[in-house]
Amino acid sequence: MYDLIIVGAGPAGITAAIYAARRKINFIIISLDVGGQMSWSSDVDNYPGITHISGVELANNFRKHLEIYGIKIKQEEIEKISKKKNICVVKTKKNTYESKAVLIASGKSPKKLGVLGEEEFLGKGVNYCAVCDAPLYGNKTVVVVGGGNSGMDAALFLSKYAKKIYILESRPEITGESYMKEKVLHNNKIEIITRVNVKEIKGKDFVKFLVYEKDGKNTELKVDGVFVEIGLVTKADFTDVQKNRWGDIMIFRSTKTHDENMTSVPGIFAAGDVTDIPAKQIVVAAGEGCKAFLAASDYVSRWDAKHKGNKQ
Amino acid sequence: MYDLIIVGAGPAGITAAIYAARRKINFIIISLDVGGQMSWSSDVDNYPGITHISGVELANNFRKHLEIYGIKIKQEEIEKISKKKNICVVKTKKNTYESKAVLIASGKSPKKLGVLGEEEFLGKGVNYCAVCDAPLYGNKTVVVVGGGNSGMDAALFLSKYAKKIYILESRPEITGESYMKEKVLHNNKIEIITRVNVKEIKGKDFVKFLVYEKDGKNTELKVDGVFVEIGLVTKADFTDVQKNRWGDIMIFRSTKTHDENMTSVPGIFAAGDVTDIPAKQIVVAAGEGCKAFLAASDYVSRWDAKHKGNKQ
Repeated sequence: MYDLIIVGAGPAGITAAIYAARRKINFIIISLDVGGQMSWSSDVDNYPGITHISGVELANNFRKHLEIYGIKIKQEEIEKISKKKNICVVKTKKNTYESKAVLIASGKSPKKLGVLGEEEFLGKGVNYCAVCDAPLYGNKTVVVVGGGNSGMDAALFLSKYAKKIYILESRPEITGESYMKEKVLHNNKIEIITRVNVKEIKGKDFVKFLVYEKDGKNTELKVDGVFVEIGLVTKADFTDVQKNRWGDIMIFRSTKTHDENMTSVPGIFAAGDVTDIPAKQIVVAAGEGCKAFLAASDYVSRWDAKHKGNKQ
Repeated sequence: MYDLIIVGAGPAGITAAIYAARRKINFIIISLDVGGQMSWSSDVDNYPGITHISGVELANNFRKHLEIYGIKIKQEEIEKISKKKNICVVKTKKNTYESKAVLIASGKSPKKLGVLGEEEFLGKGVNYCAVCDAPLYGNKTVVVVGGGNSGMDAALFLSKYAKKIYILESRPEITGESYMKEKVLHNNKIEIITRVNVKEIKGKDFVKFLVYEKDGKNTELKVDGVFVEIGLVTKADFTDVQKNRWGDIMIFRSTKTHDENMTSVPGIFAAGDVTDIPAKQIVVAAGEGCKAFLAASDYVSRWDAKHKGNKQ
């Protein structure tokens, strides 16, 4: 049995793992990816102490920090996190692990459109990460679905590669930070279409058309790629700990170390964007990862003291 | 009148300032030093994303980050932070400033011994920062008062320069992390004297003796320098917001942005080691600085909406 299982390897999970390794506790970290949302950002200028870095590079720096402590990430998909008596059980698609404490830092993932063709053409023209996939669309025509901050950011980044970018927005106008809006409006590669509903993604081996409805009329937009930028959803379906109405895990705020960042289930802690902490920022997630680890570590010490002499 | 006044320029204050500059709000930052406790650490290996750096270098990186946004720190000593009606008033020894919100991130400072000679020989052999001042004691004899983690860290660092280091501890033994204790016990430059009370620091132009009492008998220890490492005190005497019994500012934990990190006085926020957040770590202070700024910024927007049209 492990002392601690960390779930997720974004800024919160990696920070927790660095602290866990330094404290030499018996732990594992499970995650399909490394870096989390961090790696989707084009530029990060607000991680204090690093004046300017790309999201991919920053994620790489975090990864290097893990490697220095010899930490290897188990690349497995989480199915269920639960508690049986005093023991936490983490079930993945491959294995079942047991531990004294769990730290959930699984973050958020992109919201899906939920239209016909979206699943079928995933990785064949349907994308959720402009920073990752824009270079594949050199001199092509693409459409960004979503005219908020992340949609605008995606469109601007895509304009370095693609020859033409449409932004589709369901509301009457694109909305977000004004300096970004100005840049989008002045970029002659970008065309904005508002008051639309996306109906379907069509193609053969690869995406060919996006079908949208506007004023009751369907239009087939000829595109080589679709970028979905309509927001994020919390990745925490695998646990029944208490959540708020947006699905974020509710954590306990405390002035004592041993229950800071604890969820409704003792021994299960959470940190970062998966929680109901309102500030969604890399440095906040990192700080919360540290707080949650220190709390979990304190919890494990108390667990050991309580179960001393018992067979485990 | 400013939107926001940030007090302190350690990891919490600087992070808040970086975010404030990026949001282009009208703010100032006031602090006597830059970097806070960060600059007293010899090595920082647990700031995620930077695998290894000295405390001084990391503080320098934070300072550079400020400079990129053209932020200048007002080097003034805070006398009083209070609230008059809806306006925060920050009085320094030189000026009086007004703002809609204040963010206190003044951190902690070293605890003093409170013995005769300590004030007199400050900077003349009496030191509170081994990392800063150890190089001045090449081949000299020094005494570290305090046998906890910070005292041991100071003694080990000093052993790179000084020829002889005494550690004085009032308890029956030195206490702290076991790997550090082992290093200290195996270092033949370091001599530990326990169960002592420090009585006085003596000298002429510079420190010459430290007088301590052990078993009812006074001893004059011949030393060239004294390093005081007996813990930290919260720097928040200048405000009457609610504090816990250790003098740490109590902050509100919330799931809403606009009152996260708020103190008992609306409009006055706090972050980092000056608060009752249990985890005292650089990355936590940075994360909290971001959270407190976002809350203060939200508060300022609400303040503006409420006082629209009023003469200010």
